[in-house]
Amino acid sequence: MLKVNSNYQKLPGSYLFSTIAKKVAAFSKANPDKEIIRLGIGDVTQPLPPSVIEALHKAVDEQAAAESFKGYAPDLGYDFLRERIAECDYRSRGCDISSDEIFVSDGAKSDSGSIQELFDTDNIIAVTDPVYPVYVDSNVMAGRCGTYDEKTGCWSDIVYMPATAENGFVPALPETLPGVIYLCFPNNPTGTTLTLSQLQVFVDYANQNGSVIIYDAAYEAYISEEDVPHSIYECEGAKGCAIEIRSFSKNAGFTGLRLGFTVIPRELKVSGVSLHDMWTRRHGTRFNGAPYIVQRAGEAVYSKAGQSEIRNMIKKYMDNAAILRNGLKDMGYEVYGGVNAPYIWLKTPEGMSSWEFFDHLLNNACVVGTPGSGFGPSGEGYFRLTAFGTEANSKKALERISRL
Amino acid sequence: MLKVNSNYQKLPGSYLFSTIAKKVAAFSKANPDKEIIRLGIGDVTQPLPPSVIEALHKAVDEQAAAESFKGYAPDLGYDFLRERIAECDYRSRGCDISSDEIFVSDGAKSDSGSIQELFDTDNIIAVTDPVYPVYVDSNVMAGRCGTYDEKTGCWSDIVYMPATAENGFVPALPETLPGVIYLCFPNNPTGTTLTLSQLQVFVDYANQNGSVIIYDAAYEAYISEEDVPHSIYECEGAKGCAIEIRSFSKNAGFTGLRLGFTVIPRELKVSGVSLHDMWTRRHGTRFNGAPYIVQRAGEAVYSKAGQSEIRNMIKKYMDNAAILRNGLKDMGYEVYGGVNAPYIWLKTPEGMSSWEFFDHLLNNACVVGTPGSGFGPSGEGYFRLTAFGTEANSKKALERISRL
Repeated sequence: MLKVNSNYQKLPGSYLFSTIAKKVAAFSKANPDKEIIRLGIGDVTQPLPPSVIEALHKAVDEQAAAESFKGYAPDLGYDFLRERIAECDYRSRGCDISSDEIFVSDGAKSDSGSIQELFDTDNIIAVTDPVYPVYVDSNVMAGRCGTYDEKTGCWSDIVYMPATAENGFVPALPETLPGVIYLCFPNNPTGTTLTLSQLQVFVDYANQNGSVIIYDAAYEAYISEEDVPHSIYECEGAKGCAIEIRSFSKNAGFTGLRLGFTVIPRELKVSGVSLHDMWTRRHGTRFNGAPYIVQRAGEAVYSKAGQSEIRNMIKKYMDNAAILRNGLKDMGYEVYGGVNAPYIWLKTPEGMSSWEFFDHLLNNACVVGTPGSGFGPSGEGYFRLTAFGTEANSKKALERISRL
Repeated sequence: MLKVNSNYQKLPGSYLFSTIAKKVAAFSKANPDKEIIRLGIGDVTQPLPPSVIEALHKAVDEQAAAESFKGYAPDLGYDFLRERIAECDYRSRGCDISSDEIFVSDGAKSDSGSIQELFDTDNIIAVTDPVYPVYVDSNVMAGRCGTYDEKTGCWSDIVYMPATAENGFVPALPETLPGVIYLCFPNNPTGTTLTLSQLQVFVDYANQNGSVIIYDAAYEAYISEEDVPHSIYECEGAKGCAIEIRSFSKNAGFTGLRLGFTVIPRELKVSGVSLHDMWTRRHGTRFNGAPYIVQRAGEAVYSKAGQSEIRNMIKKYMDNAAILRNGLKDMGYEVYGGVNAPYIWLKTPEGMSSWEFFDHLLNNACVVGTPGSGFGPSGEGYFRLTAFGTEANSKKALERISRL
């Protein structure tokens, strides 16, 4: 008899951001006259930069003529893009990554969710806590996480590495040896990050113990401090133990265009099996390439004009981050992040739970944020605001919060 | 200790079309002066139709201004597209499918490979044989297929439903009861299809036995005969047992643009569990929507001008199919398909194996096709040519084959 994948039934509620969307829709329906400010989901608001728009138009025109028409893209991405990535994101920072170690995809979310398929379902995974929910949810769906405890918010078989105000958001090494370690720095949701030497500790641990690190660097473009690594390959020995996932969503505004990539060094092997070969096989079988026009748009991000445009874009978001961060501090909130990442992480006031504060903010200030507990048990008592709104909205949100 | 997903090691060779690409590249390198005609991979060659190009330019311009910029798409697709699909592909044919049963994706290949995740790894799957390799390969990667026998080309745990000249390419019902049945009609690779009553037999069987049918209708736009269903939902009771996968690649030339969709009726349940709910959760967790500009391009396909343009496009390919089909028949080849699908399926001459004929054709006529055995054990002794080339190339290929 046919059986469904029973792991899906173990997942509590819906995907975090789908739940929030539903709550906001219900509020909006009940209060049609109220203007809602959305600082919840980490979606960008600035239009695509001129260089990207120009590249898109040009590529669309190529698709209109038989001589220049492009059908299926190469499985792993066009060389024109892979070479730019290897050069600009890696070699220019002293990381020895070659273009054939870059796998172009339709976004970091897809890759973050799919990468677990390379590993046996018996492996133990470790995550920093709180963290982007896709790592845990995709492993739950694959049957790797055991059972969920509603009371603690913990999965029985996941190794959590708490990052809270108490440890300065620098997680300790896992207490139980995991096979796969998910790290996201600059961190979503806390907006905090690690220094090079703090990250090196994880790389050394993985190399000593035969673990693989999945390093999500989707927010690296927001790093403003000197001693913070943009790539895990800045650490010694990382090519032997780490996969890195990157996105064009946050640095160049591609959330609605969809483009990302994953780096798997050729030397990364598990018991002699090349993860590079496995991911090559997966791409060939399960994916059909990112659109040609979108890969050309990605290429334009690396042009001189493109680089200058995205720096301006990031600056605007980081100005919002400073506004929110300083404004909330002035009101007496305990605030983290916002220096190397577009997220503000605040302690909920008066011992409110994360969801209580979510409702409080939505009902009384018409501001949408994201409850910290949605990112893991150690997120309870915290709350995330994004700097991806407009300056006007960021200021208006602050003003409304000040009147609470 | 970390273990990889050992199922990958069970896969023989690389993905079929990657293997062919490598062989062709090697030949090309050794014979730089020889002009190769590619009738292998089912990739389109005509440029995108004017309505689609116009929609793309317009949507790109929307992405250039803050007021009209679109970030993350709704998880399941924009309503403007889902509504056109439900109306034009289903309700206009008398199939009662609503827009919220349509899941927009980046293509039929992704959906074909991912859909198996909804089911337990213990389930038995059945496939028509030969068939598009993604169904089998994705299930092998998930650990559902047992072991591979190099000699027979069979997986120990897969139920094969042969479709050969002997049974007129109408597969019999499976001999062992499967949980999931993959059907692809019009069929890739044979180019043959089923009548409504022949398909109804499978629907009735699935309903009687609690199986789920995954129906890949990527080639429905090529159907020219009256009694051939365009959707499985034309069959009585199909909403209770069938998932349908569709593509914009072949009907509208989107192979390089990436757009497809999957239909999961709300009433389709397995032991009370809604597959619609499960796929909703998967989309929310593992996917971030197809690009806004590409969804607008998809919408344009349904405009009056778009429909007329794609009909012309399809006519050109089907003219090629007729040229190949008739030409090969005249030369004495035993030829199938090419009437309701852009594929020509021929019996290899003189008892050659499929790969022998591949090499023969490549080395002596510089024509690339696809060996039938790559699509399953019953494809051995057959060979696929696609009608997706240009008219000139189709004719030139014929001429070269005639001189063999």
